[in-house]
Amino acid sequence: MNTLKVELGSRSYPILIGEGLLGRRELLGQHVPARDVLVVSNAIVAPLYLDAVSESLRPRRVVEAVLPDGEAHKTLANVARLLDVLVANRFGRDCAVIALGGGVVGDMAGFAAACYQRGVSYAQVPTTLLAQVDSSVGGKTGVNHPAGKNLIGAFHQPSVVLTDTRTLATLPARELRAGLAEVIKYGLICDAAFFGWLETHLDELLAGDPAALAHVIRRSCEIKAEIVGRDEREQADRALLNLGHTFGHAVESATGYTQWLHGEAVGAGLLMAAAMSCECGLLSESEVARIRRLIGRSGLPEKIEGVTPQAALEHMRMDKKVQGGRIRLVLLRKIGDAFVTADYAEAALSRTLQAHFG
Amino acid sequence: MNTLKVELGSRSYPILIGEGLLGRRELLGQHVPARDVLVVSNAIVAPLYLDAVSESLRPRRVVEAVLPDGEAHKTLANVARLLDVLVANRFGRDCAVIALGGGVVGDMAGFAAACYQRGVSYAQVPTTLLAQVDSSVGGKTGVNHPAGKNLIGAFHQPSVVLTDTRTLATLPARELRAGLAEVIKYGLICDAAFFGWLETHLDELLAGDPAALAHVIRRSCEIKAEIVGRDEREQADRALLNLGHTFGHAVESATGYTQWLHGEAVGAGLLMAAAMSCECGLLSESEVARIRRLIGRSGLPEKIEGVTPQAALEHMRMDKKVQGGRIRLVLLRKIGDAFVTADYAEAALSRTLQAHFG
Repeated sequence: MNTLKVELGSRSYPILIGEGLLGRRELLGQHVPARDVLVVSNAIVAPLYLDAVSESLRPRRVVEAVLPDGEAHKTLANVARLLDVLVANRFGRDCAVIALGGGVVGDMAGFAAACYQRGVSYAQVPTTLLAQVDSSVGGKTGVNHPAGKNLIGAFHQPSVVLTDTRTLATLPARELRAGLAEVIKYGLICDAAFFGWLETHLDELLAGDPAALAHVIRRSCEIKAEIVGRDEREQADRALLNLGHTFGHAVESATGYTQWLHGEAVGAGLLMAAAMSCECGLLSESEVARIRRLIGRSGLPEKIEGVTPQAALEHMRMDKKVQGGRIRLVLLRKIGDAFVTADYAEAALSRTLQAHFG
Repeated sequence: MNTLKVELGSRSYPILIGEGLLGRRELLGQHVPARDVLVVSNAIVAPLYLDAVSESLRPRRVVEAVLPDGEAHKTLANVARLLDVLVANRFGRDCAVIALGGGVVGDMAGFAAACYQRGVSYAQVPTTLLAQVDSSVGGKTGVNHPAGKNLIGAFHQPSVVLTDTRTLATLPARELRAGLAEVIKYGLICDAAFFGWLETHLDELLAGDPAALAHVIRRSCEIKAEIVGRDEREQADRALLNLGHTFGHAVESATGYTQWLHGEAVGAGLLMAAAMSCECGLLSESEVARIRRLIGRSGLPEKIEGVTPQAALEHMRMDKKVQGGRIRLVLLRKIGDAFVTADYAEAALSRTLQAHFG
């Protein structure tokens, strides 16, 4: 088992990564001392792991809530349902919530925990690659609004992130590829060597090789923990983690959160961020080609259909990085060197959108 | 103008108290630098002050939202409506929300600000005595759940509290009396001299004397700012501010939030906390009589009808101070000396509820 730590003073917490951790029933119990626990999962993950998790928490009082699967269900109405479950079971401020599933489950369970009684404790048990490398770490919780991704939410740090890499054995290939987009993102923003490692070992990752997957989970969490520890509330550097996301969120919200997995949209967003960086004269064409090759080999979709450039731009305007009405973007100087800027030519953005949308 | 400060490090903020502050249009502008502002008010307050506040914010972009009046409307559904307004107007993370009204408006506008884009800035402009002495200070935001008061919410500190004492001139007598309950609470928990002052000056307060009201607002805010500065998230001493509230919240939720003003329920709750403290052999009967006399003179209702002791107890079990299934109560050793305890005889609580409910 690997243990990393997110250093946030009194809100610090460990990330435990290892094979078969869900079978070690003492682990979850140790980090979730509450006597009343709500385990939140979804219709796909629950049949696979919910019994084991609930069982490992006995003799605590365990209540289970199973949400529908998918980004389209990440709504305030569903968080309200979780709050109703907490209230109906008369859970106190000393209860805990456990998120067992992917990013959607984690974001909603975490937001419910943030709001219930003005904040109760919660634990992340991510079962998708995307959640294991990204969304379970850092305390961003929330839901989508029809007009924009993650517009409603809270910063609320979990008490532990418990990643059992064995859960990836049951992960559909499409979900695995979506998770790889966030992994590639880490290489692009600050670790060129890691990007190179991904180029070399991509086939092992796509084949589900446990050692290769464990490596990318660990390295991704290291990078994320370090950045979040420096800038919990995204006043500065944390925005780098949004590379590809301003474009990607527009893809998701413009298509009603029903067609694209978040990671898939991020993959397309990374391509657009690279193209835009090239348009701005920052990134070389050869590096753009390297990025395009790796994302293509990952099996991530590149073609965005049914969304006009104008519609995409409208959705980008709802991005949380907008400041003074101006869309701020994360761009690349080279692979491994990202930065946030509002200083770019509108024409470059237009050309990028024209090339990828519609 | 009096200026107090809530000391919370990077989240510190001033409380400005004075007559006619809403007429000094530079004040609000100075503390609300955002260019996009949502002013939230209710159907009673809006016709009186909304135009003046919106006007003082020009040439900013000002959007107004008017909520229905009353505790029964402090719901997640209404906060969702405020979030829709923010989204529909494409407000960014650099926007601000202004709460113009009483505690219900302040709690909902503050919670919307806490959740929108994971937190935007907001200002409190309280127009009721209760909001001016209590709810506008300290960053507790949220909504009611049918099963329990304030069960859903967030700690989110405002950027400024701007209290124009002249707004009390338009406050209905019933609302003024409700606010006095929270004022009396401060004397009870930690300031016997202030309690004595209230006994002497109550008639002036009830007559709406500006100097007397300004004094109680200032002193109440001093006490609250000091306690919140010590314990922002109610890990310890802040719970003292809940004297009378565990009982009072049960009155409110058991009656569907429609019959009692919050302050009225707190008044009844203070009586029950005093009676319970006496039952436990802590508080003398003569002090209970003093408390009963002051609350009676304030014109606060003492009779709770239509709620059985059993129903009241059920609602008390949803209190946020419940720990390990045990209801913690704020009790009095004497006037000016409150403490939090779970160490009391169940029989004492039963007798207290029997004497006041049903």
